[in-house]
Amino acid sequence: MGLDYRVKCCPDGLVTDRRRRIKVLDCTIRDGGICNQWAFDHAFVQRVFKSLVAAGIDYMEVGYKTKHGLFDRDAVGPWRFCDEEDLAKAVEPGQIKLSTMFDIGRVTPEDVPHSRDTVIDVIRIATYAHQLDEALRLLDDALEKGYETFINVMAVSTLTPDAVDEFLLRLAGSGVHNVAIVDSFGAMYPHHIRYLVHKYMNYLGENIKVGVHFHNNQQQAFANSIVAIDEGVDFVDATIHGMGRGAGNCPLELLLFYLDNPRYDVAPVLEMVESFAGMRDGLRWGYHLPYAITGYYNVHPRAGIERMATDERYQVREMFEALAGRHADRIRGVG
Amino acid sequence: MGLDYRVKCCPDGLVTDRRRRIKVLDCTIRDGGICNQWAFDHAFVQRVFKSLVAAGIDYMEVGYKTKHGLFDRDAVGPWRFCDEEDLAKAVEPGQIKLSTMFDIGRVTPEDVPHSRDTVIDVIRIATYAHQLDEALRLLDDALEKGYETFINVMAVSTLTPDAVDEFLLRLAGSGVHNVAIVDSFGAMYPHHIRYLVHKYMNYLGENIKVGVHFHNNQQQAFANSIVAIDEGVDFVDATIHGMGRGAGNCPLELLLFYLDNPRYDVAPVLEMVESFAGMRDGLRWGYHLPYAITGYYNVHPRAGIERMATDERYQVREMFEALAGRHADRIRGVG
Repeated sequence: MGLDYRVKCCPDGLVTDRRRRIKVLDCTIRDGGICNQWAFDHAFVQRVFKSLVAAGIDYMEVGYKTKHGLFDRDAVGPWRFCDEEDLAKAVEPGQIKLSTMFDIGRVTPEDVPHSRDTVIDVIRIATYAHQLDEALRLLDDALEKGYETFINVMAVSTLTPDAVDEFLLRLAGSGVHNVAIVDSFGAMYPHHIRYLVHKYMNYLGENIKVGVHFHNNQQQAFANSIVAIDEGVDFVDATIHGMGRGAGNCPLELLLFYLDNPRYDVAPVLEMVESFAGMRDGLRWGYHLPYAITGYYNVHPRAGIERMATDERYQVREMFEALAGRHADRIRGVG
Repeated sequence: MGLDYRVKCCPDGLVTDRRRRIKVLDCTIRDGGICNQWAFDHAFVQRVFKSLVAAGIDYMEVGYKTKHGLFDRDAVGPWRFCDEEDLAKAVEPGQIKLSTMFDIGRVTPEDVPHSRDTVIDVIRIATYAHQLDEALRLLDDALEKGYETFINVMAVSTLTPDAVDEFLLRLAGSGVHNVAIVDSFGAMYPHHIRYLVHKYMNYLGENIKVGVHFHNNQQQAFANSIVAIDEGVDFVDATIHGMGRGAGNCPLELLLFYLDNPRYDVAPVLEMVESFAGMRDGLRWGYHLPYAITGYYNVHPRAGIERMATDERYQVREMFEALAGRHADRIRGVG
């Protein structure tokens, strides 16, 4: 028997204390759904639901709430809309906190039932910083209707420090319950996470929880989650087998290994990973060079997703140099 | 233009200073060769060599040195032996430091030419702690023959802290130039790395460089390399597109992005990644659940490699539980 690094080698006793109170939010169906247009059938989502409940996960994000008519229902699965009749076929209330995400411009208060008329417990509003007025209107409505509320300010890596301070000050007085640090482009390294975790916690104060939602373009989604946990955040987003837009997210199974907390049971998640492993070969989330390059250049993964969808060969030299040109322009203030 | 996190957000000015003097060792042909029995042809290794030289990489490990007759040359490529006539077809002296690895028991001093009679500059001796007597005999011979020398003590995650101290004390007086922290099983998290980097640096003293060689079972190879860099190590191992045994290694392209040092040019490496991306589909290094499980349980990736080679489906529940049983036995002192 060797060194049990998990227990003995941690130089900082605090780490264990912090890890104990972490909450885990699984957003496989919502963020993973971006890979397959939310085409999971009801029985599959029910299996995911049951696995997450059995694993002791704290939150399950079941999709986006979207105004009717904005997407073609023949092309896009039910978890882009999260209608009550679809939810009723896949999930049950009271076993795990159920969340839906709102995109700014794709949902308005009249699309949102009172919390007593839905299985949904939590509304997460995804917003860019420049859309915060509209996000706060949706927030006020969600609070009035009795929801637990999260706000995810996306692509924080593209903002100046002043712009981050500005939206955090507004969120601090907004009544929101949770705010996540969102690395939409997979651009951030551990030193950015340390910087932002302290900034978010300082500005948001004691009554607003801080979470993280990371992308894996540079193989940092899980590693940055570890940093965030050690710096003291309250919750972490993950997806089964890391399924998510582009390079994907922090893999839930790795997060549960790391947390090593008897409150969670990783075994039901491992069985679900088998189902996702087959999907990954076709949908190609995970580590691929085009995503690494968009992450490195701190831009939306769009160019990487297009490259992966249209071409077996990466042809990355051209992509890398095009982005290098844009990057240089931005530094010179042209872009 | 947004926050340039790469430059502005680093809370610790020292990080940049440390990063400036890091040396990079590429071991694609040696560790990646474990995936394909070193069946790279000479022209391909020459392309890798030229790319690494153009990228400004400091060291290239071109394979293992092995006693003739130990492997069937029809089944195993030339980079398991590193004969001078093969080296001459692929690499040139004086452009990058060239290294070969020794396995204990597979090479003896009579197999090793004087350094003036080979293109090889560096000998890296891979040893388990219990083989250290033999490793030090090979080291003495390599030093006498004029080589720069590295020792990689493998699977340090399986050793008690006392056993780590013991081998470090012996290495401190051995004359070796470099010692690497080796996470053979991909079992280690950042807090282990911080603990071990300080231990290695303290025990080995100022005249022996410290490096790292990490495996990616839990998506930590690159992340742990960042930790090691920030804690002050001198060199980092990486492979192109992360090719290496099991889950593979720290991807060289990600490391060069992170170092962001004009001494290196990532572009020639990106072109090589295209060639490796096609190989990855067949050879299946990278993030796969069977490797994550062996990493989590801190055991050799053998069981994961077998699972990946024989079966499309992971069947990991059984594997996970078998290892859980072994793990419990080890904690009880049975194993």
